[in-house]
Amino acid sequence: MSKVVTFGEILMRITPLGNKKLKQSNQLEYYFGGTEANVAISLSQFGNQTQYITVVSDDFIGSAVKSYLKQLEVDTTSIIELHHPLGLYFLEVGAVMRSSTISYNRAHSAFCHIEPHMVDWDEALHDCQWFHWTGITPALTHNAYLTLKEGLQVAHKKGITISADPAYRKDLWNYGKNAKDILKELIMYSDIFIGGPNEINELLGTHFEYTNEDFIAASKLLLAEYPNIKKVADKTRVSLNANWHKIISRMWTGTEFLETKELEITHIVDRIGTGDAYAAGLIHGLLHYSDLKALEFANASCAIKHTIEGDANLLSEKEVLNIIEGNTSGRIIR
Amino acid sequence: MSKVVTFGEILMRITPLGNKKLKQSNQLEYYFGGTEANVAISLSQFGNQTQYITVVSDDFIGSAVKSYLKQLEVDTTSIIELHHPLGLYFLEVGAVMRSSTISYNRAHSAFCHIEPHMVDWDEALHDCQWFHWTGITPALTHNAYLTLKEGLQVAHKKGITISADPAYRKDLWNYGKNAKDILKELIMYSDIFIGGPNEINELLGTHFEYTNEDFIAASKLLLAEYPNIKKVADKTRVSLNANWHKIISRMWTGTEFLETKELEITHIVDRIGTGDAYAAGLIHGLLHYSDLKALEFANASCAIKHTIEGDANLLSEKEVLNIIEGNTSGRIIR
Amino acid sequence: MSKVVTFGEILMRITPLGNKKLKQSNQLEYYFGGTEANVAISLSQFGNQTQYITVVSDDFIGSAVKSYLKQLEVDTTSIIELHHPLGLYFLEVGAVMRSSTISYNRAHSAFCHIEPHMVDWDEALHDCQWFHWTGITPALTHNAYLTLKEGLQVAHKKGITISADPAYRKDLWNYGKNAKDILKELIMYSDIFIGGPNEINELLGTHFEYTNEDFIAASKLLLAEYPNIKKVADKTRVSLNANWHKIISRMWTGTEFLETKELEITHIVDRIGTGDAYAAGLIHGLLHYSDLKALEFANASCAIKHTIEGDANLLSEKEVLNIIEGNTSGRIIR
Amino acid sequence: MSKVVTFGEILMRITPLGNKKLKQSNQLEYYFGGTEANVAISLSQFGNQTQYITVVSDDFIGSAVKSYLKQLEVDTTSIIELHHPLGLYFLEVGAVMRSSTISYNRAHSAFCHIEPHMVDWDEALHDCQWFHWTGITPALTHNAYLTLKEGLQVAHKKGITISADPAYRKDLWNYGKNAKDILKELIMYSDIFIGGPNEINELLGTHFEYTNEDFIAASKLLLAEYPNIKKVADKTRVSLNANWHKIISRMWTGTEFLETKELEITHIVDRIGTGDAYAAGLIHGLLHYSDLKALEFANASCAIKHTIEGDANLLSEKEVLNIIEGNTSGRIIR
Amino acid sequence: MSKVVTFGEILMRITPLGNKKLKQSNQLEYYFGGTEANVAISLSQFGNQTQYITVVSDDFIGSAVKSYLKQLEVDTTSIIELHHPLGLYFLEVGAVMRSSTISYNRAHSAFCHIEPHMVDWDEALHDCQWFHWTGITPALTHNAYLTLKEGLQVAHKKGITISADPAYRKDLWNYGKNAKDILKELIMYSDIFIGGPNEINELLGTHFEYTNEDFIAASKLLLAEYPNIKKVADKTRVSLNANWHKIISRMWTGTEFLETKELEITHIVDRIGTGDAYAAGLIHGLLHYSDLKALEFANASCAIKHTIEGDANLLSEKEVLNIIEGNTSGRIIR
Amino acid sequence: MSKVVTFGEILMRITPLGNKKLKQSNQLEYYFGGTEANVAISLSQFGNQTQYITVVSDDFIGSAVKSYLKQLEVDTTSIIELHHPLGLYFLEVGAVMRSSTISYNRAHSAFCHIEPHMVDWDEALHDCQWFHWTGITPALTHNAYLTLKEGLQVAHKKGITISADPAYRKDLWNYGKNAKDILKELIMYSDIFIGGPNEINELLGTHFEYTNEDFIAASKLLLAEYPNIKKVADKTRVSLNANWHKIISRMWTGTEFLETKELEITHIVDRIGTGDAYAAGLIHGLLHYSDLKALEFANASCAIKHTIEGDANLLSEKEVLNIIEGNTSGRIIR
Repeated sequence: MSKVVTFGEILMRITPLGNKKLKQSNQLEYYFGGTEANVAISLSQFGNQTQYITVVSDDFIGSAVKSYLKQLEVDTTSIIELHHPLGLYFLEVGAVMRSSTISYNRAHSAFCHIEPHMVDWDEALHDCQWFHWTGITPALTHNAYLTLKEGLQVAHKKGITISADPAYRKDLWNYGKNAKDILKELIMYSDIFIGGPNEINELLGTHFEYTNEDFIAASKLLLAEYPNIKKVADKTRVSLNANWHKIISRMWTGTEFLETKELEITHIVDRIGTGDAYAAGLIHGLLHYSDLKALEFANASCAIKHTIEGDANLLSEKEVLNIIEGNTSGRIIR
Repeated sequence: MSKVVTFGEILMRITPLGNKKLKQSNQLEYYFGGTEANVAISLSQFGNQTQYITVVSDDFIGSAVKSYLKQLEVDTTSIIELHHPLGLYFLEVGAVMRSSTISYNRAHSAFCHIEPHMVDWDEALHDCQWFHWTGITPALTHNAYLTLKEGLQVAHKKGITISADPAYRKDLWNYGKNAKDILKELIMYSDIFIGGPNEINELLGTHFEYTNEDFIAASKLLLAEYPNIKKVADKTRVSLNANWHKIISRMWTGTEFLETKELEITHIVDRIGTGDAYAAGLIHGLLHYSDLKALEFANASCAIKHTIEGDANLLSEKEVLNIIEGNTSGRIIR
Repeated sequence: MSKVVTFGEILMRITPLGNKKLKQSNQLEYYFGGTEANVAISLSQFGNQTQYITVVSDDFIGSAVKSYLKQLEVDTTSIIELHHPLGLYFLEVGAVMRSSTISYNRAHSAFCHIEPHMVDWDEALHDCQWFHWTGITPALTHNAYLTLKEGLQVAHKKGITISADPAYRKDLWNYGKNAKDILKELIMYSDIFIGGPNEINELLGTHFEYTNEDFIAASKLLLAEYPNIKKVADKTRVSLNANWHKIISRMWTGTEFLETKELEITHIVDRIGTGDAYAAGLIHGLLHYSDLKALEFANASCAIKHTIEGDANLLSEKEVLNIIEGNTSGRIIR
Repeated sequence: MSKVVTFGEILMRITPLGNKKLKQSNQLEYYFGGTEANVAISLSQFGNQTQYITVVSDDFIGSAVKSYLKQLEVDTTSIIELHHPLGLYFLEVGAVMRSSTISYNRAHSAFCHIEPHMVDWDEALHDCQWFHWTGITPALTHNAYLTLKEGLQVAHKKGITISADPAYRKDLWNYGKNAKDILKELIMYSDIFIGGPNEINELLGTHFEYTNEDFIAASKLLLAEYPNIKKVADKTRVSLNANWHKIISRMWTGTEFLETKELEITHIVDRIGTGDAYAAGLIHGLLHYSDLKALEFANASCAIKHTIEGDANLLSEKEVLNIIEGNTSGRIIR
Repeated sequence: MSKVVTFGEILMRITPLGNKKLKQSNQLEYYFGGTEANVAISLSQFGNQTQYITVVSDDFIGSAVKSYLKQLEVDTTSIIELHHPLGLYFLEVGAVMRSSTISYNRAHSAFCHIEPHMVDWDEALHDCQWFHWTGITPALTHNAYLTLKEGLQVAHKKGITISADPAYRKDLWNYGKNAKDILKELIMYSDIFIGGPNEINELLGTHFEYTNEDFIAASKLLLAEYPNIKKVADKTRVSLNANWHKIISRMWTGTEFLETKELEITHIVDRIGTGDAYAAGLIHGLLHYSDLKALEFANASCAIKHTIEGDANLLSEKEVLNIIEGNTSGRIIR
Repeated sequence: MSKVVTFGEILMRITPLGNKKLKQSNQLEYYFGGTEANVAISLSQFGNQTQYITVVSDDFIGSAVKSYLKQLEVDTTSIIELHHPLGLYFLEVGAVMRSSTISYNRAHSAFCHIEPHMVDWDEALHDCQWFHWTGITPALTHNAYLTLKEGLQVAHKKGITISADPAYRKDLWNYGKNAKDILKELIMYSDIFIGGPNEINELLGTHFEYTNEDFIAASKLLLAEYPNIKKVADKTRVSLNANWHKIISRMWTGTEFLETKELEITHIVDRIGTGDAYAAGLIHGLLHYSDLKALEFANASCAIKHTIEGDANLLSEKEVLNIIEGNTSGRIIR
């Protein structure tokens, strides 16, 4: 199988049990998660070789992060340890029309102390076929942006396929740079764009709507402006409420519009990390399947992640293929 | 904000985890709850000043009740402690078509030993804008009825707005008095009637149906017989099963019929206390908003309580207003 | 009430909490369950006298099995203890389109060491009205098959009504005998056949479809070939996904086709043992009610089991009758 | 083995996990326990036939009590169900010098509604060798005292051996009778007195000290005043603190003074029910062994109960004999 | 009773259950604690009026802190909310010779963003009898030091008694100031010094030993250099291992040496916050008792805190007095 | 650091929480453990490179075993997967004089289906400095013995140091071979003997006592008979009860008798795997330190394992060295 490298921040998620509010009980659960780590983990479960680059604390929490990644077959040899705490967030889980609420504690995390030249990109990207990045990383600190750019430049030079999930988060980007300027610069190193009208509007200042027509038009414009980009893949979600969603995916392949069938998740177990499961499914699909099957795989990977507790999709390639083949009745496997 | 006072019994709710029956596991959870306490707590979360009057045991359980109320910003200074146990109930939580089952242990509780003159109503109702009572309290003991009547008389004299939730529970009322006679007497001190055709039929011996036409007719009759009552507010619930309900609210303002949009709760977390959340929402709304907005607020408050574990609605005014504004997709708030 | 005897293997079910995968947490829950044990337990909860015959380990786990059965009013006096471990299985619980997965450890269990003449069938079947068996037992070992045949012969001789649930499990039947041959032999001792077109096709090598027409035709053919069989009862299930099913039951009484109304389980708590709840409901119904009411009772018993954690239906006759009477809204019972 | 009957109240014990105070967490555990029930359960584990007579609530809690007893092999056929709640208590578990604290809710329990002639003593005591009672029962209500007296009279007439544990609890005895008068009356029906100088002083108004000399003198006096009493057995406990006790037992056989070796419990798991384990050990010993071995068995049974969670000693005769034989190092048994 | 004010940082403590390491389980418990908050809480439990001044995050975690304090009767009206996360720490609990390990995340906490003039000291110290501070606060940031100095100056001017626990923590003090210089300055505003030879050596650069002789000599020297200090109180601890300690306290009253009896804690439940329990006991004692009784009360308060889970001593004055009176056997209180 | 290889069976340990018996609760915890796996894990924590060879099931349980080992830095590349269940055992944890009880389910485990030539020993032992085996492995099946012998022969040929822990378990050895004969054969390939008079008596048929004199004499005799053995290391344990042990270690180096200081574990958290922690400590010590320091390290490693939940010692080299240096008071490390 192929080797995929991802780079970004991993956080500890701490949450009261069930739907309780923090003040209702002193019992908590924790998970680790970060968008790029989730992608790497999911790709490992699909059978790929993966490496994840990040910064963790030099204590028993950083050690637990590395244990978690090793347990799930992600190479941790390039992970940096610094004497700063791991970032974390608290999550109160909502239901139906009640929103989940997140309180972050990440502004001064170990990852935010990353500096250029800390990562040996040449070694980390050795023998790598695919590099994945998201818009969260350059949003954190100027140095995180610079370090990511280092990585993109090395990856580009090595001819590695690069996927970009430009996920724009308004509440980050506090270090004085303009999100659009930086994302535009980084997009230039990327081959696959994971996003749709929203993300393209953010980047190009356009006003495309959510329709398939507009998705195609927006994609064409994006490819015109960034000829390095070959494909645009987008997941559309209808949220009936916090427990019930529907997912369809669509792709502009440069020449063709593709769309998957709809998957309905009537009883969501965990909403977090479903976009990352989509990205991992897409990367796995594009590495091993046709475009259409890749899109169906990404859509199914996203859907089934809603049934897994924690941030990362722990299902195997076989289990996701099973969904594509129409086995969505959830029968017991003995 | 305004000060609201409520009076009634608070019980400990003890329940096996999840949907287990008591004999399936020795692990339990507990919550405190009582209809009038729940109303006070919810009003505190909305930002109002509240005071709750009750009787608790003079031991570590009574102390835990007071801690619970203080934690949620309810004034406990008028709470009486007696050397009798706190009332409690065990709850086995059903699902779908399986009913939840309750076993009460409240007949000889601390609250049932209340006696007239124990509560200093003059002090408790000082600076108070609103007094809320329910039909549970006079159903418990003759002395509870007398004590409530004391309170209503003082409140009435002080010109405090009084809301009545006549909630008729057949299995109570064991001390030899007729529910209808007593409720009729107490209703005369009330300004706002929380109930619909069912409750009015119970009181007036009429046979109104569940339709809006009958609701209006019944309300008009009630206002004719009890000119002190200014408004009638009713919540209608369609229960598909134990996990899936729909809620609409309606009001007769004395001159006008108002109705809210429907809210659907597809995955109920906790059914208990949703009527109290409705009452709290209504009181808050009538204190601060127009009639229609008050009704929408009550309806949304009721709906969202179904997503909270425990008896009381812990959500803020802002979170309920968010529902009214149509944000019912339960998106994560970061 | 009547005495019903069942015979088969009971296993320990071990499962991570909620929807977690085993590697996500070291917290587990356990239940005991086995198809014939589940039938006996449910029949006890309905008020019948029951006895369950099995083999357990001669240690604290076997002792816990007997405690579990005694607790639920099943007679354990004929249970055999051997110095081999109790069989068990691990279950990872899926959701929506994610299947639950089972890993068995039963091939060398205490029950698999049963030998002919170990059970004193004459004593065990004394005063018994009904004997129930399933296709799991003869699928385990040759000796299990022989022991079951011993029991069926004694039951037959005593004129006891015999129900057969031929549940065919491909992954068992590893001891060199052909499932069809053996099931055909054992079916000859049976009065009530629990199954439909699938099970009849398996037995007779036919190709009936799932329609009611085919169900009737298949049943007629079965009764023609096995004149000892008097009735055929079948439960049909539509699985929207792992959390949402619909159930209808149908019966060929020998002269008449009966069908129940549909019950919809929108939020499944536990899928395991629902077929056993159906069988128990059917046996109870046929012992005490008309055919149609028996079928409705079986269907309701099956449906409500989906709301109970663990393998066995713990609800009373009254609670199931309540469903038949249309009380499916899951209201709280105080 | 022999049949032993006991009679008294069983309560639900509800407790926060570990050493938490109730207000520190909403997670609880429950156990059932009552001094006479604990004695019956322990005697069942030792291999005796036992029956326990009590009154429970007619709901799912009373049903859980009966399940609990059946699971542990105690005959429940004479248990009465009434429409009153089961008594219960909350326990906050202390440590070292911090006392455990109990809050009772038992004054109006189902058992307190027992009345003479409710128990069919003739049937219950059929084929019984031993009847055991404690001073808790007559302390509860006048009717409980009368019912116990009925039982003692029937037992006495049938020539059944009767053991009395006069456990005097000041906080009970609220129904207007004098403890000493009633205990004196009931002691006259008893053969074995479980108690020492404290209990004898309470009964006879004497002032014996804790020494062996005084124990002998007090026992002699007791036997002189109550010639029906044949033996006096006493357990002496040194409490270093809530976690660390030492236990020695002594007996006056009517002719001889016996004393056991000391057992030290350095890490107490659960303090409750250790006196009941002592009584059960003594009864079992006197039924099956010599006086000295009976006393050693009682002492070891008491000591080892400190290592069991919940109220009842769940260990087998073999496990207790193992302690007597000096195997107190707690080695793993594989 | 009296009003005591404390000021400092409160942290969330997050810990795996039992003695597990973080990577062994994803189940956690949390508590809130901070040395000055713990002192305020314990003083509230003893019956005093208390107020705690701190900075918390402006989210559901800060809200939970305030709920926690209100629940325990601490006035929170002067607490400041800032848009920075609450500080926290992770704790892996050791046993016997294995140390507990702490990982802090507090360097950029909400409290670290305090600035002079944020606290209205005049209002906060109104009607206050006692102000307590520790060396943790000035060690955090320069602004924390300045804010504390503001408070000390106002308290001093109002004639409020001031107690200082100079607890020197090497790992803090990272903002460029010398601990000794700053502590010396702040000590000048203090009346009661909580510490012994270690703390005095740290302050004065002396080399006193641990003996009582040296304690007296060191105390005399301290009082000579800081005439504002009236009394020196010190707790001496012998740690056999992580589970077993002995505690004795001693005081130099200015004229007299006092020493308590030793208390032995053989089974420690929670080691954290025992020094704070000591300080709270001392303050309560000096407010209400003689010096010797105050010292015994402080020593007992410290000892019994070792039996409470979480950071704060939740026991009442009566429960601590009970220890002083020699009731250390931990008997059950019914 | 060095590479150590171990070979043997790993089991799942399943246990009720705290000191509960299985029938008292349906809540369980699990751990993985096996003597040789525990040794490998502990050596990894000390910083060595390790590889563990075993057979696991080809399902989610086998996958969880591999995740567990990877998480703890043990190389799993030579682990074999077979379609048989993983062995497991249930543990009821005793206390004080109550023994823990184990019920095994391992007789037909995946490991018991190992066959010669399944392991590629040449590859597995490449670059390895130390191979460790125990007497458990050859006791399981004839093929396990043959496979181990293969490994020992390859290791011997490669000049790898071999340590033998001949741990004799009577209850195993059920495949028809004599333990003594086989152990004698395997001992001939070993350099380090971990055991004392007991183990030597078992092997040589001698009757040495537990004294140091006899230990020296027995060791000399062993070295005389097996000249390949260079050192004999033995741990002596005094068990006050299940919660309180004392440990001293001694060694015969071939020329010298060495003995450690005693370590006392007053509050045992988990007794299982302490011998494996000893073996791991000894191997680490002999690889990196002097004989005496190695013995002290082994003794401390064994002692501190008693404070860790689960089977394996998770502490680092630094934490164990800390104990040797006399830091046994368990102070909090911040």
